[in-house]
Amino acid sequence: MKLVSYSQDKKIHLGIMVHNSIYNLNAINELIPNDMATFLEGGQSMMDKAKLVETSILNDSSIATPISNFNLLAPVPKPSSCRDGYAFRQHVASARKNRKLDMIPEFDQYPIFYFTNHNAIQGPGDIECMPDHFEKLDFELEVAVVIGKKGRNISAKDADSYIAGYMIMNDMSARTLQMEEMILNLGPAKGKDFSTVIGPWLVTPDELEPYKVPAKPNHVGNNYNLTMSCKVNGIEVSRGNMADMDWTFAEIIERCAYGVDIYPGDVIGSGTVGTGCFLELNGTGLLNDPSFKPQWLQDGDTVDMEITGLGVLNNTIKKVDTNFSILALKKI
Amino acid sequence: MKLVSYSQDKKIHLGIMVHNSIYNLNAINELIPNDMATFLEGGQSMMDKAKLVETSILNDSSIATPISNFNLLAPVPKPSSCRDGYAFRQHVASARKNRKLDMIPEFDQYPIFYFTNHNAIQGPGDIECMPDHFEKLDFELEVAVVIGKKGRNISAKDADSYIAGYMIMNDMSARTLQMEEMILNLGPAKGKDFSTVIGPWLVTPDELEPYKVPAKPNHVGNNYNLTMSCKVNGIEVSRGNMADMDWTFAEIIERCAYGVDIYPGDVIGSGTVGTGCFLELNGTGLLNDPSFKPQWLQDGDTVDMEITGLGVLNNTIKKVDTNFSILALKKI
Repeated sequence: MKLVSYSQDKKIHLGIMVHNSIYNLNAINELIPNDMATFLEGGQSMMDKAKLVETSILNDSSIATPISNFNLLAPVPKPSSCRDGYAFRQHVASARKNRKLDMIPEFDQYPIFYFTNHNAIQGPGDIECMPDHFEKLDFELEVAVVIGKKGRNISAKDADSYIAGYMIMNDMSARTLQMEEMILNLGPAKGKDFSTVIGPWLVTPDELEPYKVPAKPNHVGNNYNLTMSCKVNGIEVSRGNMADMDWTFAEIIERCAYGVDIYPGDVIGSGTVGTGCFLELNGTGLLNDPSFKPQWLQDGDTVDMEITGLGVLNNTIKKVDTNFSILALKKI
Repeated sequence: MKLVSYSQDKKIHLGIMVHNSIYNLNAINELIPNDMATFLEGGQSMMDKAKLVETSILNDSSIATPISNFNLLAPVPKPSSCRDGYAFRQHVASARKNRKLDMIPEFDQYPIFYFTNHNAIQGPGDIECMPDHFEKLDFELEVAVVIGKKGRNISAKDADSYIAGYMIMNDMSARTLQMEEMILNLGPAKGKDFSTVIGPWLVTPDELEPYKVPAKPNHVGNNYNLTMSCKVNGIEVSRGNMADMDWTFAEIIERCAYGVDIYPGDVIGSGTVGTGCFLELNGTGLLNDPSFKPQWLQDGDTVDMEITGLGVLNNTIKKVDTNFSILALKKI
């Protein structure tokens, strides 16, 4: 199933996409709530009800009317939390090579994550950026999962069953703000708190079965052979594959849930796929050709991310009309 | 006012403390909601209604019956987010000195913060810890604010008006998990995601007026002369003062709200006061006496934090009965 959240008449609704049309689930079965958060709290029983609706429409599309005049939102418009992982070795290795550093051995010892601003989650459309964000504004091409049931102390071997579905994630990053704050060792926060894009829909795991591949050696959990790409202004800049995740989502979930409750509606990102951001691409470019000119996102740029089976996530960068700045570099 | 959340009959309620007794606000004025989140969304008008209740009880305590048989919860049981700052220069300088490093000049350039697990907020009582957490288990003595109205792009000079109140915060930390993950540069997450304690009540800014002091030179916003201390098993181990905050909450809020909505119910911690954790105290001890024996929290230890005007926050460390571990050190 492809589940969506959309707005219509200033209200948020829960829908399902069938044959490229979107149907309101609650209008077809009033036992299904009209918002993603409550739906996810209903667990497998709600998933089963939505599946019956999908099957009915597939059998006879005249049983329901697709909705029109809507705006697609983040599939989970108000996540209960948002963590981001660090699963792709290639991204970490390339970033370090660009800084003439060897690969860090601790990468292979534990699947770290950090918390980011779940209140700045958004879906397709404009990404509003402040002047400081345009100091090396960047995308990050990732895949994300949404947790579908509450749990705590979950072994990696059991953790895939906690995944309600998969989505594309664009972890927008303001590199100068990020690099400033990271000097003080508490990680990225202000450099990544203004927009994290998820969407366009939440794809349930059953849809990805045909793409399933084994985890890498010495790793546990499901992985999928899904091509990941990103175009900026229509030109492809990134290309990778979800199967290159070294740490699986199952392993990341094990770590997240150690001594901590995870909840339906928690979002967890994979971390950036190899080649999946200008920071990495620019570094590689400069390493190979010192005359290379680094590229960053500008006002009006379009960012289109595509992952096999997960759709296309379209956004446009939009500059807020203000001069307000908090960047230390600008104050000095 | 001193606002509290408490549980009674398995439900969460909103109360006010007057003369050391707790009264249910909704029972006295049904226009006041019975939960802190909705109350805070009501803004100044709700604060005014609660103030009238407090005045009425102060004038004639026979108008209402104090509640009994309740459990005190975190004043904001379900915060909309939790950020933690890095405001006390002494803590940063001592920690670096212990590692034989000079003070980092970037500390004075921008008031960094990071996001922590708002779903692991708790109040007084037991703090459940897993085996890995006991590898250098630590407290952190902090003061925290709760945001009282929605805002974005707020100048520091205007930011104090967004503060609904102040509380004690204990940012529990598992140092070995934290040190492992911080090697990979994404900051602290797993080392601090299992418990952040706030309470015992939310104290509105008007109560702290008698303690108000100017911000430090070249800083903007309110500060307060409030003694902060922590006892472990009844023995004082930390003592500091909120007035030693170099970055004010107003300045931290300016940074948090840059290009980002902040919401009623957002919690922001100050960062650790100087001497406010074993990590710092142990380092200083070892620096002065190589035979010094570092101390960490153990199963059954009591941690009692007190801040002038904000009450006393009592917790007990409790070991979960399991051997489950995710610590890389234990796997090798």
